[in-house]
Amino acid sequence: MKVKVLKFGGTSVGTIEAIKRSASIISNWSKKNKVIVVLSAMAGETDRLINLSKSFSKTPNPIDYDNAISTGENVSCALMSIYLNSIKIKSKSLLSWQVPIHTSNEHMKSRILNIEVDKILKELKVNDVLLVPGFQGINSKYEITTLGRGGSDTSAVAVAAAFNSECIIYTDVEGVYTTDPNLVKNAKKIPQISYEEMLELASQGAKVLQTRSVELAMRKKTKLSVRSSIKPNKSGTLVTEENSTLENNTVSGIAYSKDEAKITLSKVLDKPGVSSRIFGPLSKGNINVDMILQNVSQDGKYANLSFTLPRGDLEKALKILKKEKSSIGYRKINSSNNISKISVVGVGMRSHAGVAQTLFETLGNNKINIQVITTSEIKISILIDDQFTDLAVQKLHHAYKLHK
Amino acid sequence: MKVKVLKFGGTSVGTIEAIKRSASIISNWSKKNKVIVVLSAMAGETDRLINLSKSFSKTPNPIDYDNAISTGENVSCALMSIYLNSIKIKSKSLLSWQVPIHTSNEHMKSRILNIEVDKILKELKVNDVLLVPGFQGINSKYEITTLGRGGSDTSAVAVAAAFNSECIIYTDVEGVYTTDPNLVKNAKKIPQISYEEMLELASQGAKVLQTRSVELAMRKKTKLSVRSSIKPNKSGTLVTEENSTLENNTVSGIAYSKDEAKITLSKVLDKPGVSSRIFGPLSKGNINVDMILQNVSQDGKYANLSFTLPRGDLEKALKILKKEKSSIGYRKINSSNNISKISVVGVGMRSHAGVAQTLFETLGNNKINIQVITTSEIKISILIDDQFTDLAVQKLHHAYKLHK
Repeated sequence: MKVKVLKFGGTSVGTIEAIKRSASIISNWSKKNKVIVVLSAMAGETDRLINLSKSFSKTPNPIDYDNAISTGENVSCALMSIYLNSIKIKSKSLLSWQVPIHTSNEHMKSRILNIEVDKILKELKVNDVLLVPGFQGINSKYEITTLGRGGSDTSAVAVAAAFNSECIIYTDVEGVYTTDPNLVKNAKKIPQISYEEMLELASQGAKVLQTRSVELAMRKKTKLSVRSSIKPNKSGTLVTEENSTLENNTVSGIAYSKDEAKITLSKVLDKPGVSSRIFGPLSKGNINVDMILQNVSQDGKYANLSFTLPRGDLEKALKILKKEKSSIGYRKINSSNNISKISVVGVGMRSHAGVAQTLFETLGNNKINIQVITTSEIKISILIDDQFTDLAVQKLHHAYKLHK
Repeated sequence: MKVKVLKFGGTSVGTIEAIKRSASIISNWSKKNKVIVVLSAMAGETDRLINLSKSFSKTPNPIDYDNAISTGENVSCALMSIYLNSIKIKSKSLLSWQVPIHTSNEHMKSRILNIEVDKILKELKVNDVLLVPGFQGINSKYEITTLGRGGSDTSAVAVAAAFNSECIIYTDVEGVYTTDPNLVKNAKKIPQISYEEMLELASQGAKVLQTRSVELAMRKKTKLSVRSSIKPNKSGTLVTEENSTLENNTVSGIAYSKDEAKITLSKVLDKPGVSSRIFGPLSKGNINVDMILQNVSQDGKYANLSFTLPRGDLEKALKILKKEKSSIGYRKINSSNNISKISVVGVGMRSHAGVAQTLFETLGNNKINIQVITTSEIKISILIDDQFTDLAVQKLHHAYKLHK
């Protein structure tokens, strides 16, 4: 049995017309394959349910909250199946507990543990298309769980992995671009990209794929591609293993995020355990710290410590750190929320020198000051004043010749 | 464990304010009882889902259709539980498959077979309130089924029966009235009514309770009452076994339905099996025939046969009967859709003569022609021209002294 896994995002099922358009893509695939389709909720529906829930409580209890916000995907699956059946394609919508999709126990940010294949295989014997809701599953207590924002991508990759199938993500863009096309007019679609690069781009702010879905695809070696549901005949971007026979570009893409804030603690006593006294309470407060930078003073007694975090968490983090001041032992706390992060990503960095140099030169020539630098094997990230974000991305895109 | 079962209809959970108002009723009951609450979808939500589904297919396939239209109750249960928890009442929303509520296999008009009590009892040990979605269940194939319009009343009575509890239906009216208060200004609330009378009133067009819920309550001897969710301190209507110690009113109430049509087949050959050749195909077409009237001709060879059906089914029924003309063998087919039905209901009819006479006199004095009459032990139903509906109900309400 040849199985294809397709995923359609919120805008691709956001209206009656969009559902019908996406149905014709499904219909084409179903001519030569059995098709499992993972759907998001209709665009705006999950936000509507979240807002409704939060109008009753700022901190809704997790079980009920997941029950409320998981209904949108079930509706879009049912509607899609109703339409497919009406155009004579044998289809059936399944609920996550019917598959079942097993997840970890926690709510609102659960992780997929296992997808049972027996029920789906049985259903595929009598149906050509199965519709499976993204973003959710059931835990060991048979409660509905949700996977967190963008979780439907992860659902789709998990289903594809379970069936050793390719996973095609249909969305409202034509693929992954060298950078945001809204910002750089001559940004180019990347025909093929490695998991590692995609992961760095995804986690650094490119919004096409959810980071966790790329992680999972990389771990399971699932062939993953991104295509347009509006122009389905255009080739998209294929995310796959690094292809050693191809000459890689030095830099594949540039991602940016304006949603950053920075906290600096001055004169932290440089003694064992101090990091955990800083980051422990933040982690308990559900704050994800990103870049961390530490300079030890010349006498070795004190350190200055800076780190970045999502801008929305800044107030909460400051409150936590001020409360823990005596336990941590720092002199001063400073913060800024007018910074942005730019990441230059490419597996070619491994073998090409000069990537960092080009970055420094380009920004220097444009009088953009770099506040923090961190690097990994295939990525350089910098923090700059957020008013220079667009300029920096445009200049770097040109400097790395990504428009060619 | 003292268990109360409450049910709130669509308008009682139709807005954030309505949910909060209904929550305060639940909160009061939860002080001295464990409470199971059965909820409808927020007013308008099921219609929205039905319309969405039907925009893809006029005849949506049943499994997917039930998946789509059953989501609204899950949302209202989750929202109610979020709010109850936020005001410190330990609550949890359950999905119908989690209870489970077992139904018959058919979709869109399924019947409740059994409600498991173990899971609910276990949950009631750690929660004060459980929220259960009305209108739905799962069948033996573990598919979601729905119960048909107004099914949430039936869900509530079934839950109450399973726990030997009283069932209180909270709605947007204060109880069951002697007739429609919109039509007769001095209609009076009925404090107590027998199952049999309520059943006749419900099935004859009074919209307060769904017929099947009354049937079920009668069979299970479940104490059922109707109260206002807006004025919860007002006493409502108690539906219970006939109270022989009370002097019953001759007539308890008058119901009417403008949603009627009539078909007459002329010169039907009066031979064995002809009825089944008429009503068999209609039943297969899912058309519920109500009143049936047959006059055999003097020579005993032919009969004229009239019956009523919901107005919305008239076209479909005519199409079926014309197709079956040669099989049935009739001369002519006539139909009318400007008729309405009025029913006078009361257990007192059993022992009081003259109820029919008052009806004939009243309508005669007002020059309203009666087209068809049928009677049961506790009910007289008539068909009249629908332009006289309001007048007839008002005059009859007065003639039977129901305003006193």
